[in-house]
Amino acid sequence: MVQTLSSMANAILDQPTVIAVTVFVALLCACIVIGHLVEENRWANESIAALLLGLASGAVVLLVRKGQSSQVLVFNEDLFFIYLLPPIIFNAGFQVKKKRFFKNFSVILLFGIFGTIISFCLITLGAFLLFKKIGITSLTMKDCLAIGAILSATDSVCTLQVLSQEQTPFLYSAVFGEGVVNDATSIVLFNAVQSIDISDIDGLTALKLLGNFLYLFFTSTILGIAVGLLSAFGIKTLYFGRHSTDREVAIMMLLAYLSYMVAELLSLSGILTIFFCGIVMSHYTWHNVTESSRVTTKHAFATLSFIAETFIFIYVGMDALDITKWKESNASAGTSIIVSLALFALVLVGRAAFVYPISCILNCTKQGSEEIEIKKQFIIWWAGLIRGAVTIALAYNQFSSSGTKSANVDSMMITCIIIVVLFSTVVFGSVTKPLIQAVLLNNANPLTSRENDFVSLEDLRLLSLENGGPVDNGSNQSAPRRSKLQLFIRHPTSTVHHLWRKFDDKFMRPVFGGRGFVPFVPGSPRSTAGETSDLNNSN
Amino acid sequence: MVQTLSSMANAILDQPTVIAVTVFVALLCACIVIGHLVEENRWANESIAALLLGLASGAVVLLVRKGQSSQVLVFNEDLFFIYLLPPIIFNAGFQVKKKRFFKNFSVILLFGIFGTIISFCLITLGAFLLFKKIGITSLTMKDCLAIGAILSATDSVCTLQVLSQEQTPFLYSAVFGEGVVNDATSIVLFNAVQSIDISDIDGLTALKLLGNFLYLFFTSTILGIAVGLLSAFGIKTLYFGRHSTDREVAIMMLLAYLSYMVAELLSLSGILTIFFCGIVMSHYTWHNVTESSRVTTKHAFATLSFIAETFIFIYVGMDALDITKWKESNASAGTSIIVSLALFALVLVGRAAFVYPISCILNCTKQGSEEIEIKKQFIIWWAGLIRGAVTIALAYNQFSSSGTKSANVDSMMITCIIIVVLFSTVVFGSVTKPLIQAVLLNNANPLTSRENDFVSLEDLRLLSLENGGPVDNGSNQSAPRRSKLQLFIRHPTSTVHHLWRKFDDKFMRPVFGGRGFVPFVPGSPRSTAGETSDLNNSN
Repeated sequence: MVQTLSSMANAILDQPTVIAVTVFVALLCACIVIGHLVEENRWANESIAALLLGLASGAVVLLVRKGQSSQVLVFNEDLFFIYLLPPIIFNAGFQVKKKRFFKNFSVILLFGIFGTIISFCLITLGAFLLFKKIGITSLTMKDCLAIGAILSATDSVCTLQVLSQEQTPFLYSAVFGEGVVNDATSIVLFNAVQSIDISDIDGLTALKLLGNFLYLFFTSTILGIAVGLLSAFGIKTLYFGRHSTDREVAIMMLLAYLSYMVAELLSLSGILTIFFCGIVMSHYTWHNVTESSRVTTKHAFATLSFIAETFIFIYVGMDALDITKWKESNASAGTSIIVSLALFALVLVGRAAFVYPISCILNCTKQGSEEIEIKKQFIIWWAGLIRGAVTIALAYNQFSSSGTKSANVDSMMITCIIIVVLFSTVVFGSVTKPLIQAVLLNNANPLTSRENDFVSLEDLRLLSLENGGPVDNGSNQSAPRRSKLQLFIRHPTSTVHHLWRKFDDKFMRPVFGGRGFVPFVPGSPRSTAGETSDLNNSN
Repeated sequence: MVQTLSSMANAILDQPTVIAVTVFVALLCACIVIGHLVEENRWANESIAALLLGLASGAVVLLVRKGQSSQVLVFNEDLFFIYLLPPIIFNAGFQVKKKRFFKNFSVILLFGIFGTIISFCLITLGAFLLFKKIGITSLTMKDCLAIGAILSATDSVCTLQVLSQEQTPFLYSAVFGEGVVNDATSIVLFNAVQSIDISDIDGLTALKLLGNFLYLFFTSTILGIAVGLLSAFGIKTLYFGRHSTDREVAIMMLLAYLSYMVAELLSLSGILTIFFCGIVMSHYTWHNVTESSRVTTKHAFATLSFIAETFIFIYVGMDALDITKWKESNASAGTSIIVSLALFALVLVGRAAFVYPISCILNCTKQGSEEIEIKKQFIIWWAGLIRGAVTIALAYNQFSSSGTKSANVDSMMITCIIIVVLFSTVVFGSVTKPLIQAVLLNNANPLTSRENDFVSLEDLRLLSLENGGPVDNGSNQSAPRRSKLQLFIRHPTSTVHHLWRKFDDKFMRPVFGGRGFVPFVPGSPRSTAGETSDLNNSN
């Protein structure tokens, strides 16, 4: 009977697709179970489990197919950028602690934009010089520029897993926020490198690039905010929940995704767009939907993001044994290792070259308690060394399509970049968590940074009192009178935040809804704390 | 600046894919808004809105491209069967009223298996005779058999939208349950037709087919139940909720999907498998997860299913203007209309030929109150006339790959089948709801069937008393003493249900969890009613 059945085998479906999907879904299930079991282990996490599981299954496939191919699914940039990345970045925006994020906005922008550019320049220069020394001559200047952009793209997905938003709030928002801006910057740089005419570089090129970047940054952000506000306004006005919870959830999900796709269509940075769309949605839209939609969106978005993350790591792991590339590469193990080491050294130096200087500059402008200590600088440097799927996607894009150059150097570059990604993810991904605990948490109490928060909150309360008199709060009676200007100089971000809150309450919330502007449902997962985002507290 | 930007246009992503995804997501958003606005209109619904919107955008694309192609996304069976169908069928199983479903199980099996076979035979025969009369001679006997299988596949997606589980519970479970079994039957028939050697048909062939079907039916069902139980046991044992709600939701989603993919891989019926997996998951697994996972899964699965449904209708609508097929078809409008009418007439007759006889047979074996009145028979006949995406997918499979026959007849068959699908979905989809209200609800109170339920529940309570004595319930003191055998003869389904409940409580629930075997969380969306599934009541 089974014979007869398989003879009338799936006439309808494409068998390789079915096999690939089945393998991936099964691996995802395995990763989730493993991730659950190693939850309390501080060395392991889901990403590494997924990566190793992907590698292992790649090896098994390789054995089964007798060394022909390890790939069940060929790495596809569309799959990654269109389907896997958006849910991850959207969820990051949706669940980020907004107040903390905007408080560190200047830090994030400096690291994300100037840091990436410095790293890009250094890695390009280093690659150019080093490859000549090693004896690889077929790489053009353009290839080196591309390598600079490729290796400047940090992996924010793994960072999310190794840093804790609760334990190290400043580091989390700085490193993760940098990662989001870095994504945009490195993709802009990569696209610019692709389109640039090397023979015709002048002073204007750099200016043009900067202009492009600023255009991209602002239009992407505005698009994301606009779609977020549209969703808030639409859901508040039409009141979908009257008929169906499902429509609310569906429209939130689809509009967020639409913002990403429209941004990509307009050649903007979809990552920036969907990130800001997520922030706006959590601030307004989320409060306008029914209670069950709130619970559903919070967990469903997190789940989708979680599945996409795990999928990416399995994918990267399985794709690392891309045997055709390894064969084509034709390089000895020695050369591969030397090149990989050289690339990784460039990554280390490139990152150090901006983290420490920028931190110093920031420290000069800041008060004692808020400055970035040398230990934190080290962690910022360290946590941003992980390279991930964006790097691999860009590497494939650069080194697999070109037909003019020698194929074996291209293949070698891809395999070496894969080695860098695997090494950084496994080693840095597993060491970072214990390292942070050893370096930071034992010595400096993480609450100190929180206390700073409360101090500035206190200042804010002072600021909001029209007469500026002392608060009738026993513990703070000795608080000195401070002028508004003085406060602004001392706590510029807090003042901006205060002004924003006033503007928000007066103009935005009445139109777009948000907490306090929709009927309160008892038992909802809202916190009563003063955080702007209550998504985080009720986790 | 924009010029410069578009010149460094998306170096990374495939532009057509981005456009296609953007268009579809935008159309989905529009459909949701329209569906919300026409919610109270009993003639319109989301499916029809999606279909018409798809048609309209197809026309726009056709105009923009100056008549070259209306397709933003070419109809792809993989997309449909691998990504869109599973969430719909899983959710149907997850949210179905289980007691009602199993009560009507014999009806569902009779309609779904024998009905589909009768319809298949009649349509095949009719197509063979009619096409000869019309003058289309290039269709082989094999093509006619395929047409029989293709047009016997009812569309359960639209049925879900036009029938209400609350208002007409019997009709909903009968027609929808039939649809699920029908899907399996017609795909088995279609695959069988593909692999059969026409020149070598004997009496054994039919027997073989039946054997195949039974094998498929049981293995698929068992696989679904096994995966469902595995998820319940795994979640109960490992207690994922301890660390993360997201893992619970993810593992439920992935395991359900895995059951579908494994079934497809083994050439079983994925639809049957995932349907039963959904039923088992709602009975056991759903009760083993945390409170927020319960809310999330309930709404997230419904949302995914809802998005997939809407997507399919947009897809079918947009694909209807497949201009290359229309051009290739080369048939006059007259011929197309005649063939479409002939096909549709066959659908009408084919369905009538099994609904009425089977209903009569069923009525002979049933009590007066439970029999299928002529009005209900009419609705069952009517609601099952809708043809949908499965039909189109099978038609493309049959008539677009073959190279030996004349291409224009193949194309004509595809266009005619598309006409049948569009016509049946728009007309029957919009008329069915008002029709049911006119025919059924005005005359017969839908609650009569519910009262029957309570009567048999009463009987059950009698049955469960060891001494068989009367219940000390004031309203039922006059209930006559009935022997167990008498009860079994009068209410065989209820008795089976009772025995199942006993077995469930004694052996299954202690192992696999389920309601009452996990700590009760106050404020959970559980009902206190006696329904087996509380998913439905808390809707």
